[in-house]
Amino acid sequence: MTRHIERQIEQLKEKILRVGTLVEEAISKSISAVINRDASLAQRVLASDEAIDRMEVEVEEECLKILALYQPVAADLRFVIAVLKINNDLERMGDLAKNIAKRVAQLEGATTVEIPPEIRPMAMQAEEMVRECLAAVINGDPVLARRIREQDDVVDDARQKIRKRLLAGIKDHPENVEALLRVNSITKHIERIADMATNVAEDVIYMVEGEIVRHRVDE
Amino acid sequence: MTRHIERQIEQLKEKILRVGTLVEEAISKSISAVINRDASLAQRVLASDEAIDRMEVEVEEECLKILALYQPVAADLRFVIAVLKINNDLERMGDLAKNIAKRVAQLEGATTVEIPPEIRPMAMQAEEMVRECLAAVINGDPVLARRIREQDDVVDDARQKIRKRLLAGIKDHPENVEALLRVNSITKHIERIADMATNVAEDVIYMVEGEIVRHRVDE
Repeated sequence: MTRHIERQIEQLKEKILRVGTLVEEAISKSISAVINRDASLAQRVLASDEAIDRMEVEVEEECLKILALYQPVAADLRFVIAVLKINNDLERMGDLAKNIAKRVAQLEGATTVEIPPEIRPMAMQAEEMVRECLAAVINGDPVLARRIREQDDVVDDARQKIRKRLLAGIKDHPENVEALLRVNSITKHIERIADMATNVAEDVIYMVEGEIVRHRVDE
Repeated sequence: MTRHIERQIEQLKEKILRVGTLVEEAISKSISAVINRDASLAQRVLASDEAIDRMEVEVEEECLKILALYQPVAADLRFVIAVLKINNDLERMGDLAKNIAKRVAQLEGATTVEIPPEIRPMAMQAEEMVRECLAAVINGDPVLARRIREQDDVVDDARQKIRKRLLAGIKDHPENVEALLRVNSITKHIERIADMATNVAEDVIYMVEGEIVRHRVDE
């Protein structure tokens, strides 16, 4: 029985890692598609969302199966619950990547509107947070998880800078407001991806240390 | 043992209902604060977020306790898992209400910018969805849950209409872009609250019928 649950949990780790890899790729490709105005790459991101959705359902079913059949306690129970929540967040990150990819078609006509190059480093930072939060989950690494929370501020600052430039752009060229707001919403989506990676990191700290840090004022 | 778990689940229902009531109130008050430009009401919404956060932590601990001590299976297990997810979503809805309330201070100087009156019915629809999704959870009512999914389209349409008007406003008065975008973000937050109520509704259908409907293309 013990052996059996260990094997199940190993499989669950592999599965959630696969979901994470798909989501990371979707984010990275969606940003490349926006920056290079690459409609066919954007299309591939949209198509990949179905695979992410399917994997999410599989992982959730797997978690419920483990809970029902093996009735884990202590660390195993917390791990399964953390995976359930992370799975949910990863699927939502995938949705955000899909929303970013949708902007490519919407920006097609707006060739005079510049895509701020700062979007790339901002997105790379967010991607790194997603990659690291997954590693933190799999390895149960609260030190890494705490580092992710700090990176979130970097992403927020980058977003505020880009936002200010876009607002100035709207004032100078109000006729471009639709396109500029679409670019703005891309940075908003990246920010939300980073926020969710931060949520996951907080779940990891909880999972390992049994301490809910999400709402602690002192941190 | 059976009696014991039943009592625990009853208590869990009461608790999640209390979280839901707090969140509903926060949404309703945040919208009133925006429409009436009522800074002190906005302040009360910001203050209430702490109580919501605290309740979320309590509900999560309660769920983990039930899983560890009573090792529920079948319907009980699905209910506990659904509560875990709903709890998470309710807390995020509370955060959105907090973000809406923050706009009141940011809009203080912008007295010439109209708050579109259509925000009120849009928000009331979203609030109804939150109330109904909670009822759907407590009563395990998939019929109600399916109705909530339909209401989401109404909210989306309302948001698109307000968005168009705000964009036209920015073109006419680019100097008001900051304030108009803040109003726009309020409607975006309401839309996300409605989306989350829809997520909860989908969890209820799953909880009752054991069927994951979230990503079914035909619906």
